[in-house]
Amino acid sequence: MVEHMKWWGWGQEGVAFHHEDKPNLAPFVMKVAGIDFDAPPVRVPELSELDVPASRAPEELRAAFVEALGAEHVHDDDLDRVVHTYGKSMRDLVRIRRGDFGRLPDLVVYPGTEAETEAALRIALEADAVLIPFGGGSNIVGSLEAPREETRPVVSLDVGRMRAVLSLDETAKTARIQAGALGPDLEEQLNARGWTIGHFPDSFKHSTLGGWIATRSSGMQSDRFGDIADITRAVRVVTPKGLVATAEVPVQSTGPSVREMVLGSEGRLGIITEATVQVHRLAEERVIQAYFFPDYASGLKAMHAIAASDASPSITRVSDANETQFTLATSKKGSTLGQLLNKGVQLYASKRKGMDLSQMCLSFIGFEGSATSVRRDKTLVGEIVKKHGGFGVGSGPGTLYDQKKFDTPYIRDFILDRGAYGDVSETSSSWTTLKSVHDNVVAAAEKAFAEVGVKGFIFCHLSHSYHSGACQYFTFAFQAPTDRDGLEVYDTVKGAIQQAFIDNGGTLSHHHAVGREHKRWIEQDISPAGAGIVGALFAGVDPGRNLNPGAIVD
Amino acid sequence: MVEHMKWWGWGQEGVAFHHEDKPNLAPFVMKVAGIDFDAPPVRVPELSELDVPASRAPEELRAAFVEALGAEHVHDDDLDRVVHTYGKSMRDLVRIRRGDFGRLPDLVVYPGTEAETEAALRIALEADAVLIPFGGGSNIVGSLEAPREETRPVVSLDVGRMRAVLSLDETAKTARIQAGALGPDLEEQLNARGWTIGHFPDSFKHSTLGGWIATRSSGMQSDRFGDIADITRAVRVVTPKGLVATAEVPVQSTGPSVREMVLGSEGRLGIITEATVQVHRLAEERVIQAYFFPDYASGLKAMHAIAASDASPSITRVSDANETQFTLATSKKGSTLGQLLNKGVQLYASKRKGMDLSQMCLSFIGFEGSATSVRRDKTLVGEIVKKHGGFGVGSGPGTLYDQKKFDTPYIRDFILDRGAYGDVSETSSSWTTLKSVHDNVVAAAEKAFAEVGVKGFIFCHLSHSYHSGACQYFTFAFQAPTDRDGLEVYDTVKGAIQQAFIDNGGTLSHHHAVGREHKRWIEQDISPAGAGIVGALFAGVDPGRNLNPGAIVD
Repeated sequence: MVEHMKWWGWGQEGVAFHHEDKPNLAPFVMKVAGIDFDAPPVRVPELSELDVPASRAPEELRAAFVEALGAEHVHDDDLDRVVHTYGKSMRDLVRIRRGDFGRLPDLVVYPGTEAETEAALRIALEADAVLIPFGGGSNIVGSLEAPREETRPVVSLDVGRMRAVLSLDETAKTARIQAGALGPDLEEQLNARGWTIGHFPDSFKHSTLGGWIATRSSGMQSDRFGDIADITRAVRVVTPKGLVATAEVPVQSTGPSVREMVLGSEGRLGIITEATVQVHRLAEERVIQAYFFPDYASGLKAMHAIAASDASPSITRVSDANETQFTLATSKKGSTLGQLLNKGVQLYASKRKGMDLSQMCLSFIGFEGSATSVRRDKTLVGEIVKKHGGFGVGSGPGTLYDQKKFDTPYIRDFILDRGAYGDVSETSSSWTTLKSVHDNVVAAAEKAFAEVGVKGFIFCHLSHSYHSGACQYFTFAFQAPTDRDGLEVYDTVKGAIQQAFIDNGGTLSHHHAVGREHKRWIEQDISPAGAGIVGALFAGVDPGRNLNPGAIVD
Repeated sequence: MVEHMKWWGWGQEGVAFHHEDKPNLAPFVMKVAGIDFDAPPVRVPELSELDVPASRAPEELRAAFVEALGAEHVHDDDLDRVVHTYGKSMRDLVRIRRGDFGRLPDLVVYPGTEAETEAALRIALEADAVLIPFGGGSNIVGSLEAPREETRPVVSLDVGRMRAVLSLDETAKTARIQAGALGPDLEEQLNARGWTIGHFPDSFKHSTLGGWIATRSSGMQSDRFGDIADITRAVRVVTPKGLVATAEVPVQSTGPSVREMVLGSEGRLGIITEATVQVHRLAEERVIQAYFFPDYASGLKAMHAIAASDASPSITRVSDANETQFTLATSKKGSTLGQLLNKGVQLYASKRKGMDLSQMCLSFIGFEGSATSVRRDKTLVGEIVKKHGGFGVGSGPGTLYDQKKFDTPYIRDFILDRGAYGDVSETSSSWTTLKSVHDNVVAAAEKAFAEVGVKGFIFCHLSHSYHSGACQYFTFAFQAPTDRDGLEVYDTVKGAIQQAFIDNGGTLSHHHAVGREHKRWIEQDISPAGAGIVGALFAGVDPGRNLNPGAIVD
């Protein structure tokens, strides 16, 4: 069976964020965002208490799926339909808790093979049904929902039964993996043989290979292993034009690349069933070092210098001052993180008296490879850090960061339980514009907080460095007003952030895709003609608008 | 004014291949391919002796272009139309010398700005004319010709007036460059400020940035700088949907990437006017070292090991035994190459007595970067070479290779003058399949030579290494029979090579694109459904089939 996340929130049932062991956190978030971590949580309703609209699937459609996939793989119960109606965006979490299910899928189908996937698409097209592919359901930009006004039957196609590593070519250093494999599924299978895909997005535990490809995902170690667009060397996709299977070769000069069109297609071209991906031998050494910089500007300059150096770290990350303060506030009493960071702070203070401690910025740099290359890269990075006024505090905080890196999304549910909203927005821009993007986005968010009259907080880190620029990942939170709909406030703030990306030389998203949440910026990002070309591609492949209609472009 | 290559052959007027200073070459090619380098060359006709069909451009179409671009930028003279009717494939050279001009363009237009390019496209679409963008004209896969049966007016749009480096961002390490810039145009402008694009295809001197993008080109130093697909970070393209301008950012998660759709589009989506490309500071050190391996298999294994190592060379190249013999035969009497290679051979022979000298393989590895990294990489590579039974012969041959690297295409005209045909075909495949692709391609070519009853020769080198595989670049030549059309023999041989690529796990082209020459393999390469998707994209963007109809897919 395919396991799913909580219908009302992130991750596994029984796992939640808690802060009792982090004594500084509650006072910190109260101060900066007016969020009361000690408030009693609102009660999340039972699904049975909510009014779940019935499936509208015509019986003949259900019967056709049952015949093709088996009765046990065609679901129309409330829970399964609710789980598949949205992803896990802030808007999704709020709506689902309210019992606002949007246009629920009428059926959830679970093909077990590529041939069954082809049959499922054929059935959907013949019945003029809408079909929306579903991986782990972790999407946060509204890529998984049918249009509210959709009158045709809606089918969610869950690829979760197709999760095997089919083959591993140790010479070519590639693996053929089924699209429904969750991060842990494929990583465990690869690790057992001494290999890794090297792709670790925040959503890793609850997202699939197919989902990564469909949204152009990036993992935390992309500096070394590349984004999913680099990692994916061939795809198999069930489309209305038939089964697309591109050659398993490193590089092709075969017209506009179909492999690349599938990257970021969010189900609009078909259902990804399998991909051939680059894999790497598990590294001899792997360590994440922590550093402090005097301020964000010097941190950014250091990351730029590292990207331009002979070193090839796996992670380059630096938090701005606000995020650094937040991270320091999350340290446990008596923990390695707490001790090391406090030591860092003290060292810093003693070394550089007179500098503003509130401006200092925490950085994590990951090293991975042979012992020789790790040693060399650490030395090279150490010199660059020093040159930019920073200093190292060892590998303790990095180890902890590494252990906890997939826990962050649980916080959103925790604060939502306390009447607060929090979300993320990320962009990429050139090294030239990074600092102004940062400052203008922060200013835009603060202006939006002020305009709507809420207390809010925004912080940011740089991650994912490239030759010409990097990604900046913003997190924002605010205590929702009680006199208005929190989602309206959310829209204003999120909209201000996104518009500031575009206005300052950034893109609407570095690695979270477009979906419906970012669609209103697509023409500003890739130009109206560019959006027209994307639309022409979708219309040509799927003239009936049966495949995830409304995602990316109208 | 825009300068063009010879109408009947490669490169500049007055420049040609000659062999008088290479005493071993004529006997060598006579032995292996029956080609008589000392035969008197056939006379290439004057253009005036040939029957050039008149322009069929309606006067109102010509007038519209004249109004938009100025009379001096709208040409319909024979020479300009003949120069623009083909690229420089073997088939093109043969046809043009025969006076078989195919469907000549009726007009050649030279817009000087993006706005003029937009006007030109508008005029063409309104008149239902066919428009074919033209860069340097170096294409060898038939990407530049109108269908022979085309009854609509045909316009060749030459981007050669748009050749400026518009801006250089030294922080972002990107440059905005106009699409019509030839390799030397842009490299000289960048070099003057201490930068390089790092893209050096064989055609460098006669190909443009726009052409590189339109065909997904790769340069010799792609191991370090990436293929043009990696180098190109944003594009501006005049399309029937309007002006496409993608954001100048490192990475985007904005649906199927329009930037990527433009890569390899061969004019079918519009006219590329400008791109933002990655640039690099001219390296502190740059050297190409030569090595010998006992045989091709050990050379391939060494390249694989280098690609997997901590070294990051700019060039990894190893010739098979046949290509090595050819290269040795090209050495000049008393030259550095001759001396060093002979020394190499002798060293080899004396060191490894009893091994087959006819099997040894020449390799060039390029190093580029800081003095420290070059030294380190040379050490790492040296160890790998030794481990695979190879040995180094210094940097002399590499220096010569570097100086002469753009001269190779001139040889085709030389041998064509002697009644022989020669061409190249290249593919990429995984490290696992490289050797079998090589052996089976060579076998397929030899079988084809035997079947058609000609004496022929094929050799190969690996170049362009990736994580999962590499490119193999084959060169073949044969003495054309006098009793049949040489192009028929050529088709048989070239077809056998291409089919062997596909049948053995390779792709139809690593970096020369599809055009019309490789079109018959596209469905085998990206699957019929994949070709259908590419076709749907073209049909959606250009429903009237006005843009380079017939290229890539039907």
